[in-house]
Amino acid sequence: MSELRKDPISGHWVVISPDQEAAVVLTTDVRFITPQETCPFCPGNEIGPVHEILAYPNHLPENNGAPWALRVIPNRLPILQIERSLEREGLGMYDRISGFGAHEIIIESPHHDLLLHDFPNSQLELVLSAWKERLNDLKNDLRMRYLSIFRNQGRRSGARLSHPYSQLIATPAIPAGVRQELTGARQYFEYKDRCGYCDLIDQECEDKVRLVYQNRGFIAMCPFASRNAFEVWILPRVHSHDYGTISPDQILDLADALLAVNRVLAIALSEPDINVILKSAPIPKPRRDRWLTLEEDYHWHLEVIPRITRPTGYEWATGMFVNPTPPEEAADYLRDVQANGR
Amino acid sequence: MSELRKDPISGHWVVISPDQEAAVVLTTDVRFITPQETCPFCPGNEIGPVHEILAYPNHLPENNGAPWALRVIPNRLPILQIERSLEREGLGMYDRISGFGAHEIIIESPHHDLLLHDFPNSQLELVLSAWKERLNDLKNDLRMRYLSIFRNQGRRSGARLSHPYSQLIATPAIPAGVRQELTGARQYFEYKDRCGYCDLIDQECEDKVRLVYQNRGFIAMCPFASRNAFEVWILPRVHSHDYGTISPDQILDLADALLAVNRVLAIALSEPDINVILKSAPIPKPRRDRWLTLEEDYHWHLEVIPRITRPTGYEWATGMFVNPTPPEEAADYLRDVQANGR
Repeated sequence: MSELRKDPISGHWVVISPDQEAAVVLTTDVRFITPQETCPFCPGNEIGPVHEILAYPNHLPENNGAPWALRVIPNRLPILQIERSLEREGLGMYDRISGFGAHEIIIESPHHDLLLHDFPNSQLELVLSAWKERLNDLKNDLRMRYLSIFRNQGRRSGARLSHPYSQLIATPAIPAGVRQELTGARQYFEYKDRCGYCDLIDQECEDKVRLVYQNRGFIAMCPFASRNAFEVWILPRVHSHDYGTISPDQILDLADALLAVNRVLAIALSEPDINVILKSAPIPKPRRDRWLTLEEDYHWHLEVIPRITRPTGYEWATGMFVNPTPPEEAADYLRDVQANGR
Repeated sequence: MSELRKDPISGHWVVISPDQEAAVVLTTDVRFITPQETCPFCPGNEIGPVHEILAYPNHLPENNGAPWALRVIPNRLPILQIERSLEREGLGMYDRISGFGAHEIIIESPHHDLLLHDFPNSQLELVLSAWKERLNDLKNDLRMRYLSIFRNQGRRSGARLSHPYSQLIATPAIPAGVRQELTGARQYFEYKDRCGYCDLIDQECEDKVRLVYQNRGFIAMCPFASRNAFEVWILPRVHSHDYGTISPDQILDLADALLAVNRVLAIALSEPDINVILKSAPIPKPRRDRWLTLEEDYHWHLEVIPRITRPTGYEWATGMFVNPTPPEEAADYLRDVQANGR
């Protein structure tokens, strides 16, 4: 029997509808691999002259003597550019802003064809460190309002290349979806005087039915109002609104949790296409104190979303998602695969 | 050069980024056709005993003696059911509602394989009348809060069958995406004391650069902050918050405009997969007057969205869409195809 569920923080409703036909589940027939010879992210193929934003030297034996272990470069075809000036303009009733911002590519490994669940821990720790470093650097530019870090793996997730990479996009405006979640988190805090995500972690650790994995620093769970089948969130146990504050110990634990989640999803769903999304608080704007107290009412986390269903006109029309797999069943299955499947 | 644009009513930002690679444009290689012999929507294949909600007798010669011209039935695998009771429940910090609601299928034609742009005007007028009739009937159930009518055409849009059909989903909660647009429309009205959509129609008719088509009752245009390439909105010139008030003359004009838009998109983009979405005001709730004055501040309309690009992790993370085709260029191309292409 189906039911509607409300996310306690963002306030969005979803329909959990297990009676739907399994036909919505997309299987990945052919692994997505783009040619290595022409891959712009492979060592030796670096397109010059590209300004290198960051590079970590290679000390890892598994990277076979590549000159770097991780590299951050500007996107060759950026959706926004840091070189442009920030200009706001009205056009009758409309508003626009020049394409100011940042769009960076984090080349996560010298290896061309490596899925996230096959990353060595040490390599993933480098990726998580690079995210922190780039986030903290870009935060200094106060014209920026929001920094989004995400990774696409597989064609259905939006990836263009099979070489593992993540992207950072910084915008001078707070995107609508983010604003909705922030507003909800603030309202929760104002009503309860507690962080909603901290409450959620407490309840999930008590209920246990939606838990997928936990370690010293993090819990991984299928959210109560999952928009997507087998969606998993990874949340730090210690409250912080800002990923930029992550400690070296937390990076070890997050790499462990992110790998565990991706490994179990890879087995359970046959290496699905997948998005990983970092949700962290926006950059406070000095002259507007609106988000200045966000330390209290936001809690950074990762969202891991296998792309196994396709949104229909209904999702596009309303923003209300129909999810055929109750998160309790998804978590139960993932725990079972973890216990027996490897 | 890219720019950020803000929708004047919902407030969402989009990135218009014409420098992106054309690779994001998906072409439909193979036309989506499901088998006619087993099609549950074809005359003669009706699955019994199915309660028929509405049927229009067939008077149209082009329907070759089919028993009905249009039929409305409950979805065989509904995401929500009207037979269930409406129960709201708290689970710790979480909220859920039983799967109460409605999920109907509007079988738009007896013909198995008919794309929207090939509909005769008279047949599409029946569809638009059925939408009105079902909307007005379900509005009487005050447990419902929002009625969404939409159609999926082609696999990428979420369609499961090639037989032309639309769907109606009624929910006991207002979906998050709808609430955001309603809130924006109300804020616009409160600030300006005018309907935002009426202002938008005025500005578009003056600017002309984003206009695609117009007739006596409607304008069709690519919105200033289009989330999707070649997205077209069709708006009634006369203000009304509720599709249920559409007049017979308006139905003639809307069928004409919707056909014109779909014909030009079919030529310009080689019969793309497409969603059509009806946006109308929610059902006022007697005991809460919150949306009771919506007559003034919402304006119903249709959104026609070709599915030629794929959202990436960024769109999922932030709700901020990246659109590679500026709406002015899209509209210019569509006007050109209309003038020369048929």
